[in-house]
This record gives sequence, structure tokens and C-alpha cells, in this order.
Amino acid sequence: MVKTAVIGATGYAGAELVRILTGHPEVDLIAVTSRQYAGIPFAEVYPSMQGVVDLVCAEQSVKDICKQADIVFLALPHKLPMGLVPELIDNGKKVIDLSADFRFKNADKYEACYQPHTAKKLLGKAVYGLCEIYHDDIKGSQLVGNPGCYPTSTLLPLIPLLKSGFLDTTSIIVDSKSGTSGAGRSLSLNTHFCEVNESFKAYKVTEHRHTPEMEEILTAEAGKSVTITFVPHLVPATRGMLTTIYASLAKKAELKDIMDCLASFYSNSPFVRICPVNTLPNISHVRCTNYCDIGIKIDEQNSRVILVSVIDNLVKGAAGQAVQNMNIMMGIDEKKGLDNIPFPV
Amino acid sequence: MVKTAVIGATGYAGAELVRILTGHPEVDLIAVTSRQYAGIPFAEVYPSMQGVVDLVCAEQSVKDICKQADIVFLALPHKLPMGLVPELIDNGKKVIDLSADFRFKNADKYEACYQPHTAKKLLGKAVYGLCEIYHDDIKGSQLVGNPGCYPTSTLLPLIPLLKSGFLDTTSIIVDSKSGTSGAGRSLSLNTHFCEVNESFKAYKVTEHRHTPEMEEILTAEAGKSVTITFVPHLVPATRGMLTTIYASLAKKAELKDIMDCLASFYSNSPFVRICPVNTLPNISHVRCTNYCDIGIKIDEQNSRVILVSVIDNLVKGAAGQAVQNMNIMMGIDEKKGLDNIPFPV
Amino acid sequence: MVKTAVIGATGYAGAELVRILTGHPEVDLIAVTSRQYAGIPFAEVYPSMQGVVDLVCAEQSVKDICKQADIVFLALPHKLPMGLVPELIDNGKKVIDLSADFRFKNADKYEACYQPHTAKKLLGKAVYGLCEIYHDDIKGSQLVGNPGCYPTSTLLPLIPLLKSGFLDTTSIIVDSKSGTSGAGRSLSLNTHFCEVNESFKAYKVTEHRHTPEMEEILTAEAGKSVTITFVPHLVPATRGMLTTIYASLAKKAELKDIMDCLASFYSNSPFVRICPVNTLPNISHVRCTNYCDIGIKIDEQNSRVILVSVIDNLVKGAAGQAVQNMNIMMGIDEKKGLDNIPFPV
Amino acid sequence: MVKTAVIGATGYAGAELVRILTGHPEVDLIAVTSRQYAGIPFAEVYPSMQGVVDLVCAEQSVKDICKQADIVFLALPHKLPMGLVPELIDNGKKVIDLSADFRFKNADKYEACYQPHTAKKLLGKAVYGLCEIYHDDIKGSQLVGNPGCYPTSTLLPLIPLLKSGFLDTTSIIVDSKSGTSGAGRSLSLNTHFCEVNESFKAYKVTEHRHTPEMEEILTAEAGKSVTITFVPHLVPATRGMLTTIYASLAKKAELKDIMDCLASFYSNSPFVRICPVNTLPNISHVRCTNYCDIGIKIDEQNSRVILVSVIDNLVKGAAGQAVQNMNIMMGIDEKKGLDNIPFPV
Repeated sequence: MVKTAVIGATGYAGAELVRILTGHPEVDLIAVTSRQYAGIPFAEVYPSMQGVVDLVCAEQSVKDICKQADIVFLALPHKLPMGLVPELIDNGKKVIDLSADFRFKNADKYEACYQPHTAKKLLGKAVYGLCEIYHDDIKGSQLVGNPGCYPTSTLLPLIPLLKSGFLDTTSIIVDSKSGTSGAGRSLSLNTHFCEVNESFKAYKVTEHRHTPEMEEILTAEAGKSVTITFVPHLVPATRGMLTTIYASLAKKAELKDIMDCLASFYSNSPFVRICPVNTLPNISHVRCTNYCDIGIKIDEQNSRVILVSVIDNLVKGAAGQAVQNMNIMMGIDEKKGLDNIPFPV
Repeated sequence: MVKTAVIGATGYAGAELVRILTGHPEVDLIAVTSRQYAGIPFAEVYPSMQGVVDLVCAEQSVKDICKQADIVFLALPHKLPMGLVPELIDNGKKVIDLSADFRFKNADKYEACYQPHTAKKLLGKAVYGLCEIYHDDIKGSQLVGNPGCYPTSTLLPLIPLLKSGFLDTTSIIVDSKSGTSGAGRSLSLNTHFCEVNESFKAYKVTEHRHTPEMEEILTAEAGKSVTITFVPHLVPATRGMLTTIYASLAKKAELKDIMDCLASFYSNSPFVRICPVNTLPNISHVRCTNYCDIGIKIDEQNSRVILVSVIDNLVKGAAGQAVQNMNIMMGIDEKKGLDNIPFPV
Repeated sequence: MVKTAVIGATGYAGAELVRILTGHPEVDLIAVTSRQYAGIPFAEVYPSMQGVVDLVCAEQSVKDICKQADIVFLALPHKLPMGLVPELIDNGKKVIDLSADFRFKNADKYEACYQPHTAKKLLGKAVYGLCEIYHDDIKGSQLVGNPGCYPTSTLLPLIPLLKSGFLDTTSIIVDSKSGTSGAGRSLSLNTHFCEVNESFKAYKVTEHRHTPEMEEILTAEAGKSVTITFVPHLVPATRGMLTTIYASLAKKAELKDIMDCLASFYSNSPFVRICPVNTLPNISHVRCTNYCDIGIKIDEQNSRVILVSVIDNLVKGAAGQAVQNMNIMMGIDEKKGLDNIPFPV
Repeated sequence: MVKTAVIGATGYAGAELVRILTGHPEVDLIAVTSRQYAGIPFAEVYPSMQGVVDLVCAEQSVKDICKQADIVFLALPHKLPMGLVPELIDNGKKVIDLSADFRFKNADKYEACYQPHTAKKLLGKAVYGLCEIYHDDIKGSQLVGNPGCYPTSTLLPLIPLLKSGFLDTTSIIVDSKSGTSGAGRSLSLNTHFCEVNESFKAYKVTEHRHTPEMEEILTAEAGKSVTITFVPHLVPATRGMLTTIYASLAKKAELKDIMDCLASFYSNSPFVRICPVNTLPNISHVRCTNYCDIGIKIDEQNSRVILVSVIDNLVKGAAGQAVQNMNIMMGIDEKKGLDNIPFPV
């Protein structure tokens, strides 16, 4: 059994980690921490867990955690992890960080969007935890920067097509729509029920911090500079993310060519499903699962390809992918703990 | 491995059965039927199941099913099961029917609410599948009438208190609120998105057909005639049912007495959770699980007890309880296939 | 034109007052105040009002308001109004307070639920602003305590039946369900989108502060002591309140008797609509209007009457009723400013 | 007073017409028709209208309507209006058709998307009822083809910029998101509550019939052929449409230039609001109103302009614009009947 701990367990991503790890057959979840709820039983914070999870939220003591856990998940706001991860790494722990702190190779890009980085030397050591793309690097790594939800839903459909040269790299537009749990559990007027319900809006247009994260990876995979126009929107639903991607074809291609490229690329990836011809995914198809479903259409009149991908932002977009990374790092079957049957409704 | 089939697999309760049985470690789901979708892959009807369920919906042939399955679930509208169950029983199959057809001991009561019963002689053989109450009868039975969602959420809190004589049997008022999936997948203006969204209503006030089902069981358990006032309401949410029950105290009792009565009665029932003092359940606490959570308050000024119970109408209120019944009938651990970890959100 | 001001204009009830008063043909809304947003244009706080409302939120200066307005609305949390109202009254202003501060005749009852009352001598002067019941008192009053949303939806159906002796006054149970805007715009985990969406719960069971407010009025109208069991619930919708009321019949009565009693009582009340036989109201029927719709059923088996009332909690349950009170106080047609046509959906 | 009739009054757009016309101070709504509900009071179909609308749904008799009305609205599925409109026109009535039947100048384009057109000769007579663009033509017209909701939210932001040459006409991508009422009141699994709630999807990608409608107008206004990539999505909300438009800049321009262009173009259009710098619209800002709010951002890195527009699909996207057209045709102030104050929430 793998001994794990979750630092920052009472936010939505952290709690989702607790859910998945508790049900994981090869994991012992031995500690959860929370500054806000230290000393309070986790099941009091999340009553759905009454009788299921009996851990009490602990203070964030890296020292204590080092004694107990083999692998540590951090589900904290960015900036906090960089203060904790070095000690964990020095103690030989494996670390999966769900914040942005260890997602960038280039510290300057990180610092342009966030704040000064105090653990830069670990950036070279960290692997970007997009499981289907960096599987082999993740396998041998000690530190994984778990991707954001927007990047996951954007990169998975784009990378195979960029690698195969199908897309005009100057033409990529990403119109993404996220469920509200992506905004977390912190209180804000933006996530107040009456402000979200029956509403729909774009936000942080051209300014979202996931943009440089995506551009760094796309550029690396395409082998040339890629910039994108990225517009996130907020959907009045709890879970789910749908990303509609537009790109001009760089060479003549039919629907079959694009589908074959994606299907072949992901033929060994159990969590990526390519939708059958003429069908498109819905966020409800992947709710509470680790799947990324991808639908494809060609706009022949304008020689554009349209990709529609869906994920559950809390699972494949956060906690699920983190556990998938753990499975890969620990040599466990990639699907373990993530193979719950999808819901019909 | 237990070989099972689901007749009527493409309604919401049927599809939820498919979900649970597919994930059940001791079950082989070998056939699903659907009149509407015969010949079509189940995963085409429910794309969330793409790559997970590879069964094709079959016509409803009892003969074929008898060849393949040991235990058969029927998730059909009432009246249809009574035409199919006798042949299944004659062929020695175990049967769990999710309709009202085999829930009543008294055929007259059934016929007063529904229509003439054509398989009356099986009523004596059938066991009412409220697992926590009729566990021992279910164990040895060949035919189970699976309770409705309203009765499940009403009977579980009431029965222990009635048995212990705490409640004035003439005073019981049941105000219940159901998520919309309880109305099924058949199209109706009542379940049209724009008519349900941002709406809330009572319906079938004093006329709902679950009332006599509840009264028959309550009367049997109380040992004297019990009639109730029952008012169902429709909640603009997909899953979940919350039932608020009011009853006058028949004898002096404090909160602790009521809580002890319930806690003790359900001490061996893994799916009933009594809420801690001063906390009340939310349908979100049991979403996608087989739990029934019960909260208790005393209105001292008026000497009434107030019980608040929540279930997921598709799980403990339908498919989950059906699988729990199967586990009991087949000697499998009651929790098998139903032990998914609850969601934080 | 009546000159009005709204103190506390940026909460939901305050903003709804701004909406109604802006559209009122006999009103000049000359000032809105907000501590949180002082100095900021109201239309920046509520962008729906861009180009429609050009007032800037002012500090709460009673002195300034006294110079400008004839009638003042207060939409503040309880306790604050009692500090402001005496000065307004002393300056000869008419006042409508939407908090609990001036709803009680009996200061002890107020103080038992809230906190010490610092303007007790005004309680005798204040009229309870339930328009259909206290129309004549409101007409001549200078100070109105505007009822809460739960009391409005509870008292309107009950009072005529109590006055006519139809109901057993010891038997009344009120099961009420409120949309989330009733909880206001202040941030709280209870009103965080992901906590409300797809959820449903009871709260403050037997402990809600609207209970004594209702009991005081019911007792006065029934002519004898009335206590009730009151349980509020939270509906995952923005606007609307549905209240289901149960009471035993004190004398033999048929549906027609009850309907006639209510229809006759409200024959001159333009905002109360009695539903036709066999129909029941939905919160969607009154959304964004000042109506209170009441449906009636008799549970003959148990000799109980069941009343179902619906209002929009922000309109008839708050701002709409406040404007209706203003109309009555100022001798304006009761419907003015409140006669928008209801929405089909 | 203008005498009006609504043919097809019980669908959502028809009922919204009834709402607006009932509240319009210069209109007498004298007849509503419905095949499905003929003989039934309108307020029985829409109980929100109880006591407000006392019309009974009539059969669709053009002869009867010609006797009573001066101006006739048709809110029917396409194909039906072309069978009724010629007789209305021959009888000298003014006609506003909300279907696609009279939106196209080019019959071939209509027939490519819909079916053979049986009243082609009226196409030349019909004016496309996009009020802000074709105001003068509408003024003198007898027949208006009211625009679809997607075209309204797309054309209003694009036309001024195309006319001014700001946009590369080969680069336009329209990613639109519609509330569910846009799909109408007809029953369908696509609009079944549990299928829409907590879901989000793209549909009819590159195949939606509003595409050629938009392209015909854009081409006419740009003065050269314009094709677009158009992808509609379904939002789990009742009312509202948000359209995100991407286009490459054809010439150097800063945010101010684009804003000035739009603000100046719409300076006399009371229903178009340009959002202040750095703010973006939300469908909730225009709910139940006739406004179209437009927000603008420049993606400098990629030299693209991003336009975000919102409307209420049932108002500015259907019934509201139809009434605005009527006002223009009849010489009534454009805002009459459409000047309800927006809701704060």
C-alpha cells in the first residue's frame, strides 16, 4: 500500500483527492491537512463523508507528513507550494503539486503571471503531469506539476494534430467553458449562487494565467512558437469543462485523417475517448470520471478544424489526473482508483 | 459471478442499474433490454458509457433471458412486469422488480391505485424489498418488490419510532421533495427543462400512488392502522430526495431518546446514517450513493418530532436498493458494488 | 411625484426596490445609499442597470436624506434600522423598514430572537405591513414594518381560515421552501454556488426567527394563542418561495367552503390569486411579480386542509410589498409600479 | 390603439409576445391562436397569466384575424408562415414573421436549408427586421422577417466593424451559447430537464441553419463575400444568449478605435449598450429585457478583436425585437412596451 497525504484537503480539488484516494485499492490515505479546519474531522467539513473518512484535518507540518507519507499531494493556491515542496523533496518524498508552481520550465514565464519563484532550481526537476503526453517522464520523476483544467482540455486535442503538422500554428483559437467548481471553495461574489445561476459570462479574456502554460507546452510539442487566443467562460453547473478549439488546416485533410490521427495517438490511453463520427461530447458524459472525450468536425467551407473536448474539471482537470500521475510514478496500473463507472445522468 | 440481466435498461433507473452492476465485482451483466432502443448499443443511448459498456440493447425476450441470467431486474413502468414475472419465476429465476407490481400484499389496494392485477398469486410470495427492515425475508425470497423512492425515504425514519411507540399514529404528515430524475426519461411538459428550471411545485397532493404503499407498511409495522398526509414536491435538481416528516409525540421523549432509538435500530445497517445532534442532511450528502441520512429535531413547544431524511432517488430510491436486495438474496456482502466514496460536491 | 430614497440599496432586496421604484410612474427615486459601495455608481454594482439608473451610491446620511425624500425605504440587516428610524420619524418622514426591527408589537418577543431594542417607543406607532390584512392601518401610518418573506407566504393563506374558525389552532405545520436570493448577497458558504446547486436542505428547523413574528400575528387574528411548527428549506433557484401548510379542520368543511372563504376574503386584493380547483401554484407563476397564488386541497381521510402558497421572495416577500405599502400610505393606486405582466417562463 | 394578433401564441416566443403586447400601452391584443390549445384559455396554458390575460386560444383562421387585427405576428415553426402570410398581405395587414420564411432575399439559400418556398414573390417585399440596421426599411414595410436569435447577437457587433473595414472577412469565428428556451416548448430529449441540467454541449457544428442567414447579411453589409465558422452551444439556463466572436484585424486598431466605432454607430440605438472598458457582459445583465450588450477586447499578441455580445434570446432574440419592429412600422416610439427596468438578479 502506498502511503499518501493531502496538503490542503478541504478545497474542492483537495476534497476530490480525498475521495479518490479513499477509494483507491492500493493507497492508504494517512493524513489530510487544512489551515482553516485544523482540528476538525474531515467528515464534519464534508458531511457526505460521514462514516467513510475518519481523518481529522491536521496543521500543515511538513515534518510530520514526511514521517508518515511516501507521496504527497498539494492542493493549495499557487505560491504556497513553493515554500513546502523543497523540504518534501529533500526528504525523498514524491510530490504532486496541483498549483501552477511547478508547471513551468521557464521561471520568467511563471514570474510574469504569478510572483517571484523561490524554488526555481526545482523547475528543471519537475515534470509537467499531462499523463498521456509525458507518461515516460512522469514515470521516473520525483516531482510533478499537475496541469490546470483549461490546459488539459486544450492540450490533449491539439498536441497530436500539431505534431502531425495538420494545423496552422498562427490560427489557434480556444473558447473554453468551465463549471463553477473550477473557481474553488473560497467565497467570492463571482461564485455566489444568485450571481452564477441563470448566468453565463466570459472572463479574463486574453488575460488568463493558463494561457502561457498552454503556449509553453504547445510550442515545445509543435517545435515552433505557438501563441493562442484563449477565452474562458463560466457555466452555471458544478462540474465540467468544454473547450471548443478552432484552427485552420495547414494541409489538406478530411475528417477521417484528423480522427485517425487522434485515435491512433491515444490508442493506448485509457482515459481519452474519441467520439464517433457525427457525435460530439457533453460535459455530462464525463462527469465524475477521469475521461477526456474529444469530438471533431471539419468546416470545409473555411478549411478549419473544430475540436470539442470535455473533462470533469475536478477529476481529469485536477484530482483525477493527479492520482493518474501517482499511479504512473508508483508503477501502479494507470486506471486504479479511477475506474468508477460513468453516470447515466 | 452472478449472471444478471436488466429488462428495461434505458430509463434512468434501468441505466443506473447498468452502471452499478457493471462496476459490481461479483456480477456479470449479460443482457440489457429495451423496446425503444432494441438493436442499438447501450453506449450509444448513454454516451457516458462509451468504452465501458459494450452490450447492445436486446428485445425483451423472457425466454432468452432465462437461458442467460440467474437473477433478473425489471425497470419497467408498472403493469408490464406482471406480464413477465410469472414466466421468470416458473423458470426458477430470482427476480427484483422496481415497479409497484409486487410491492403490495393486498391486491385490492394495488388495484385501487393502478389497474387489475394479473399475477395476484405471486403477491404472497413477493417480499417488500426495504432492505433494512425486511432483510431476513429478502434473504430467502425469490421475488422482491423494490420500494418506491418516496416510501424508502419515509419508512426508514418512521418505522423504528413507530415500533417503539414514540409517535401518535394519527398525526403523521410527510412533506417530500424529489429531484426530477424521479419522473423518469419519458418526455413530458412536466420535465421539460424550462418548465422545471427555476421552478418548484407540489403535485398529486393527497393523490400520489405511493401513499397506500406507505400506509400498508406503516400499519403492519405499527401494529395498528396508520394513515398519513403525503405531499410530494418537485425540486429543480437531477438527483436527490428530501423528506420532512412531522409527528406528534405519543409519549414524553427528548431528542436523545429519539436519536438513540434510530441509532440503535440501524446499528448494523451500513447505509443508514443518523446525523449528529444539531446537524441536518442535504441531498448533496448522499448524491450518487446508497445512503439514507436521517436528521432529527424536536419541536418542544408543540411536542412534535421532525425527521428529515435524504436519499438519492435513483440509488437508495431505486437501482441501489435493488442491488442491495440482490446482494442479500445471493449471500453477497450487502455493500458490494455500492461502496463508492461519496462526492464532496 | 413622490420623492423616495433607499437606504441599503445594494443588497438584493434594496436593488429590487431600486428596480421597482425606477419604473414607478409616480415616484422619483432621488437617493440610494450603500456603505460598501459609497461613491460608486449603482449601475456599476448592478450592470443590468447601465443606462437606466444613473444614481451614485451615497453614504448613509439621515440628514441628507431628510432634505431630499418624502418617504424612505430601509433595506438593511436588522439592528441597523432602529438606529436610523427615530431621526427619520422625528423629521416627519414616512418610513418603510424591510428588517425585523419594527415588525413586533411586543418588544420582548423581538429581543428574545434578535437583540435589545433601542427604539421601543416606536413599536406602538409601527404598523405591520401585510397589505391585504392591515390595509387601513397602513393607510394612516408613518412607519411600516415590512413583513418577512416566510410570514407573507404563511399568513395570507392562514388568516382568513383562522378568522372563520375552520382550523384547529394547535395543529398548524408550515413547511416552507425558499429560493436562494432570500439569503441575500452577503457571501457565505451556504450560498456558494457549488454548495447550493443540485442541493436541497432544511435549516434552522424550529429555530427560525420568523416563527415568533408569524405566531404574534396569527394569535392576534385568531383571537387565541397560536403556535406553529415551522421548517424552512433552501431551493436551488434564485427567486421564489413555496409554502405548504397543514392544518386539521376544526369543523366539517369541503373544498368549496375553504375556497369560498379565501376567494371572498381576497375579492378586493389584486395581488392574491386563488388557484382554480385541482390546480396548484408553482413559484414560476409569480416570478418577478407581486402576486401571492394560493392552492387548496382537502385530505379527507385525515380531515386536514393543505394550503400551498407561492410568492417571489424578493417582490411580494420584500421589495414589492414595500412599494405596495408605499402606494397605500401615499394614496396611490395599490398596483402602480407593480403591474408588470408575468413571464411565461 | 393598434390592434394586434399573435398566431402561434403558446410556444415560448409566442407567449413572450403575448406578455409584451399585453403590457404595451398603445396596443390592443385582440386574438391569440394555437392549434394545440384551441378553445382553451391562454391563462390555463400559462398560469402565470391568470387574471391578467383573458383571451381564449383560437383556431388559426386568417379570415377571422383579418377582420380584427391591423398587424399580425406569426410565431410558428418555419414552413407554416409561408402558407398564411400571402393572404394576410393581400388583405392589407402588416405582418411580422418570427420564422425563417421571410428572412432571406435569396430563395435558393432558403431552400438549401429549409424546404421549397411557396411564397417567393414576397421575399423581395420582405424586410429583414434587424431594427438597428434596417430601421428605415422597416419603417415603410408591410412585411418583416424577424431575425433569429443567433443572427441578432452576431450581426449587431459585427456589422459596424465590417462596414468600417476593421476586420479580415475571412477570419470570422462565431462561438455562440444559447439558453434552453431557444429550443422552444416542443418536447425533445435534448430539452428534457435531466439531460440539460448540469450539462453543456456544442450542437449542429458548422450545420446550423442560421449560418447562411448571417452570411447573407454580413456579405451585404461588408460589400464582399463573408463566410463564417459558426458553432452553437447549449447553456443550462432558461433565457439568454452569449456570443463570442473572433476576427483578425484588417488594419491596425486599438481598443479605443473599436469601441468608438461601435459606440458611434449605435449612439441613437436605445437597446444597444457598449460595455465600459475592461468590463464584459453577462446574460444576466439583459435577462427579460430587449438590450444587446457588447463587450470588446483586443488580443494584441495575435492582432485579433474579440467581441462578446449578450441578449435575451426570447426578447431581443425573438419577441422583443418583433415588437420593436412593430413600433417602428407603426410610428410608435421604439422603446414603448419594451422599457421594463432590468432585474438586479
